[in-house]
Amino acid sequence: MASLIQSKISTKLNMSRRIRRTPYTKRVEECGVTDFTVVNHMLLPKRFQKSVEDDYWHLNEHVQLWDVSCQRQVQISGPDASLLVQKMTPRSLKNMETGKCFYIPMIDENAGMINDPVLLKLDDDMFWISIADSDVLLWAKGIAVGLNLNVSITEPDVYPLAVQGPKSEDLMASIFGEDIRKLKFFNFRIFDFLGTKQVIARSGYSKQDGFEIYFKCFENYFDKNEMGEKIWDIIWKAGKEFNIAPGCPNLIDRIEAGLMSYGNDFTKENNPIECNLEKYCSDKSDHDFIGKNALDNIKKQGVKQKLKGVLFDGVDCPPCSIPFPLYSKDKKLIGKITSGIYSPKFKKNIGLSMILNEFCKTGSEVLVHTPDNKLRKGIVSSLPFSK
Amino acid sequence: MASLIQSKISTKLNMSRRIRRTPYTKRVEECGVTDFTVVNHMLLPKRFQKSVEDDYWHLNEHVQLWDVSCQRQVQISGPDASLLVQKMTPRSLKNMETGKCFYIPMIDENAGMINDPVLLKLDDDMFWISIADSDVLLWAKGIAVGLNLNVSITEPDVYPLAVQGPKSEDLMASIFGEDIRKLKFFNFRIFDFLGTKQVIARSGYSKQDGFEIYFKCFENYFDKNEMGEKIWDIIWKAGKEFNIAPGCPNLIDRIEAGLMSYGNDFTKENNPIECNLEKYCSDKSDHDFIGKNALDNIKKQGVKQKLKGVLFDGVDCPPCSIPFPLYSKDKKLIGKITSGIYSPKFKKNIGLSMILNEFCKTGSEVLVHTPDNKLRKGIVSSLPFSK
Repeated sequence: MASLIQSKISTKLNMSRRIRRTPYTKRVEECGVTDFTVVNHMLLPKRFQKSVEDDYWHLNEHVQLWDVSCQRQVQISGPDASLLVQKMTPRSLKNMETGKCFYIPMIDENAGMINDPVLLKLDDDMFWISIADSDVLLWAKGIAVGLNLNVSITEPDVYPLAVQGPKSEDLMASIFGEDIRKLKFFNFRIFDFLGTKQVIARSGYSKQDGFEIYFKCFENYFDKNEMGEKIWDIIWKAGKEFNIAPGCPNLIDRIEAGLMSYGNDFTKENNPIECNLEKYCSDKSDHDFIGKNALDNIKKQGVKQKLKGVLFDGVDCPPCSIPFPLYSKDKKLIGKITSGIYSPKFKKNIGLSMILNEFCKTGSEVLVHTPDNKLRKGIVSSLPFSK
Repeated sequence: MASLIQSKISTKLNMSRRIRRTPYTKRVEECGVTDFTVVNHMLLPKRFQKSVEDDYWHLNEHVQLWDVSCQRQVQISGPDASLLVQKMTPRSLKNMETGKCFYIPMIDENAGMINDPVLLKLDDDMFWISIADSDVLLWAKGIAVGLNLNVSITEPDVYPLAVQGPKSEDLMASIFGEDIRKLKFFNFRIFDFLGTKQVIARSGYSKQDGFEIYFKCFENYFDKNEMGEKIWDIIWKAGKEFNIAPGCPNLIDRIEAGLMSYGNDFTKENNPIECNLEKYCSDKSDHDFIGKNALDNIKKQGVKQKLKGVLFDGVDCPPCSIPFPLYSKDKKLIGKITSGIYSPKFKKNIGLSMILNEFCKTGSEVLVHTPDNKLRKGIVSSLPFSK
């Protein structure tokens, strides 16, 4: 089978300018990165020397530093900025205050998911959209050109660093001062750092406590890489007493938490209702947005499938680079596991799958066909996974 | 130096569904692919077991089969299709006939390059845009939504395969019939293949003769992978007498030919004039397109830099994953080499660089700072490189 052949292959990532390095890539290499992936035309570390499981335990107990520069910012500013941003999401932004982060589904005219970014409101006429893997910049620019809006849309020199894990608050307080402890989840504030003003949010792509530093390179201040390495080194040095390690979004932690990944667990073929994002598509909001009619129709007609968890037999989940077919007990194809791994917490394999409606009830028995040709028994779970 | 550290690291590409496989990936793995890159969220093979130089000589003498599925098609159809496509490029499409391929610069409202795709006119109201690495689908959809155009914009199930090299015509004729020999450069026609109709163009990302098969998976006909492997196998088998080998865009061939790569040699920070694409931005054309005013201003004011070739000392070019700074004789920074490699034909290193106007005259002496800390003497060359 293709996947068996593939799992034996260690395919290198061919490097070029197009696969953009970050201000931290040198440090990440010095820390012994072994795997990268590519997100938004930029390197994202995916593994260091330790196993994903060792990394998971470390993330659960200590603190990690992640280069998540690939979370590119789409900066929308100008008189029509709030109008444009609101057009791009079914989530009402009417009551959004400066200093808040909003997780927003972003849909096209057919209600297909374009992205699921985090929106930061920097000012009434200034937003950052912190994106997953698709060129939201082009989508936003296309709409703005078509509607002749008075906005400026750019990708600023901002390179997010995530500090994740239960000791992240202590570490951040040791660098940025005690005030940072008061920062609430999905809020951000401006902090001083080496004479610059930096946006720091309490957020991150893990189920642990954590912060994201939206590190901005100010022109004529320092060289981008020099400045990036400086901030990395300061955090690294201060982190030693907290047992800091290099890290990256952890597949076990992410799946346990039910955190979806755009391109993996859902694509533009999926609508936000299938992705369990109803709560960000409020019926009460009367604002106009792209895809509103399509979404209303989907709500009326109901969806055919839903994203769910699957807990399935085995302590040996093969890499899920090719989705695993999911069957009902009577062997009907009802979905596919798009992210899967062994969970040491549940002592079973876990995965995420869109599952046809009639089979997606929590507790339903299913069968997972893994690429080692095993048909494994599974149980549909709600998300996040819970004991 | 970062680049020295990096060159010692064999960093693996972490595989997931988001980094999409193609219908040929299994065959590519069986052929012993060692390196991949990611283009348009899809795998592009970058190396097999042979060296890039061995591969270059093979491409110059025989025929190769390339999985270029990552050249995704943005299909634009409907009553406003030609209106939208024309809005997206400064190149006049007024006289474009069905069956033609046009290389088109695609620019934004500031005349920054969005992409440099090949446009195929399938019918008066049906186009394929065969793209380099950026989500042109989102750009097109954004414009269409903003202007409320009557078009359908999709990514069809089309997976291009390239047959490249001097023996490609003989190979293609042995499969698709003698008529294919009459196909002219940048023309396409529909050919029968196993009961399906397939678009085949005389084109490809090399300076050799070649064809691109825009292999389309027809629903309810065959499984996508099964069908992809079938076409691969048929070409492979027929290719044996022509000494066929697996291949991929070859860096030596590409740079010698002056073929730019979007994201490597130019980005949205560059305009088409800097990229030597004046001839696709005709002054005579009076059509309206996005970025027209900005482009007119640039033409009036002139550009600050131009993409040129650089022939520089050495037979040992380090990997150009981080651009090499380019200096004038008096040590002024005048550009950076964004793609570079040793050319066995010129018996020197060659590279591509945007170079400041006053230094970009063919024959000018320059200095290239490679990451092995050598300052190498170079000469500015026109493109394509010529003896």
